[in-house]
Amino acid sequence: MTSKKRTVVLLSGGLDSATALAVALAEGFEVYAMSFRYGQRHAVELESARRIAEAYALEKHLVVDIDLRAIGGSALTDQIEVPKRRSSLEMSSAIPVTYVPARNTIFLSFALAWAERLSAQDIFIGVNALDYSGYPDCRPEYIEAFENMANLATREGVEGRMRLKINTPLIAMTKAEIIKTGIKLGVDYSLTHSCYDPGVDGLACGRCDSCLLRLRGFAEAGTADPLRYAGG
Amino acid sequence: MTSKKRTVVLLSGGLDSATALAVALAEGFEVYAMSFRYGQRHAVELESARRIAEAYALEKHLVVDIDLRAIGGSALTDQIEVPKRRSSLEMSSAIPVTYVPARNTIFLSFALAWAERLSAQDIFIGVNALDYSGYPDCRPEYIEAFENMANLATREGVEGRMRLKINTPLIAMTKAEIIKTGIKLGVDYSLTHSCYDPGVDGLACGRCDSCLLRLRGFAEAGTADPLRYAGG
Repeated sequence: MTSKKRTVVLLSGGLDSATALAVALAEGFEVYAMSFRYGQRHAVELESARRIAEAYALEKHLVVDIDLRAIGGSALTDQIEVPKRRSSLEMSSAIPVTYVPARNTIFLSFALAWAERLSAQDIFIGVNALDYSGYPDCRPEYIEAFENMANLATREGVEGRMRLKINTPLIAMTKAEIIKTGIKLGVDYSLTHSCYDPGVDGLACGRCDSCLLRLRGFAEAGTADPLRYAGG
Repeated sequence: MTSKKRTVVLLSGGLDSATALAVALAEGFEVYAMSFRYGQRHAVELESARRIAEAYALEKHLVVDIDLRAIGGSALTDQIEVPKRRSSLEMSSAIPVTYVPARNTIFLSFALAWAERLSAQDIFIGVNALDYSGYPDCRPEYIEAFENMANLATREGVEGRMRLKINTPLIAMTKAEIIKTGIKLGVDYSLTHSCYDPGVDGLACGRCDSCLLRLRGFAEAGTADPLRYAGG
C-alpha cells in the first residue's frame, strides 16, 4: 500500500486555481481543496470550485466562511464599480480597485492551519506575478516571506517535523502558458469561472480585467475558450 | 485639531489583550479593537471583550466570524478535554493540546487587512513568549517574520506609504509584570476573562493552564485577582 503525500490546494473556481490543482494532482498529491465564501460579488466562482472538486473526486473540499465585507475596501466585496474594457497599460499601471486587502494572506493562513491539521507539507496556490503584476500578494518575494513565517508559526515547523512549502507552479507563466499547461493536463476550462462581475444569469461579462486577460490568454494559446459569455 | 494615529488591537477579552490595549491607549493611539468568534469553547471571552471595548469607549470594536472548527485540531475548539491542575514543568514541556493551528497567523492576517483599510501602521497583540513558551506563534522570531511578510503583502507596503509594525508590548514580561503594568494603567481586570474551560455559569474554573498562570501572576504581583472563580 502506498500512501500519497497530502496537499492543501486553494481553489477559487477560476482558471488559475483549476490549473494549479491539476498540477498538484499530476505531481501525485492527495488533494484537500479549500475555498472561501468571503462576501465576494462573484459567488458563482464557488459553484465552479464545487464542480471542479467533484469532477476530480477530490479527497475533500472545504468551504470556509469568512466575512471580509466587515473589513471592506475592495470592488470585489463592496459596492464599488468594477472597471471595464481597460487596456493592458491601464491594468498594469497600478494596483486595481478589485484588490482585496490582505486576501491571499488570509487565505494562506487558513490553508496553513488545515495543512498543519492534515500533516501536509505542501500548499498549492495559483498566483501569477506576470499577468497580475498589480497585486502585491502574488509576487515571489511575498510568497517566500509567507513560507518563512509559516515555518515559524506552527507546532510541526518548530518541532522540525514539517517544512512547509508554498507551491506556486503558475507564478512565472503568461496566461497563455497557464492555459496550454492546463489543456495538456486535461483541465476542463468550461467548469472554471474568472469574471469579476458576472450577470444575474451567472454569465461572465467579457469586459472586466479578469475576463479580458482570460480571453486574451485563450487567443494567444490558439484555443477557444469553452466558457459562455454574456451576449456571446 | 490633532489627528491621532490609528492602531488595530487584537482583543480576546483576556488579561493579556486588555493590558496590550491599555498600553496602546497610553501611547496615544486611536484604537480599533478586533475580536473573533471562532468556535471557541470559551465564548464568554467575547462578552469580556465587548465590556472592555465599552469601558474604554473605543472608536470601533469589530467581531469577525470565522469557523476554525471546520479545520479542527485543538482542545479549545474540539471535544478534547482541557488539561487541569498541571505543574509549571508540565506546562512548559511541550506545545499544549489547547494550541489552535495557526491561530495567531489567522488573527494577524485579519488585523493586517483592517489596518490596511484604516491606513493604520500599527497592530497590537498581547502575545507573551515567557509564560506561554509552548505556543510557537507567540515567539519574537515569529512576530518578526509576520511583520516582514506583511510589508510585502499590501498595497500600502509595496507603494512605500506604510511600514506596518506589530507591537508586542508584553512579549518579554512575566505574568506578574503584565498585571503590574495593567494596574498602573488602570486596567479593570474584573472585566477580563482567561479561563479555557468556563462553567455553564460563565465562571472561570481556576484549574486550567490559563487560570493557573493568571492566579500565580496575581499572587506574584502581590494583588488579589478581582475575578470570581467557580467554587470560590
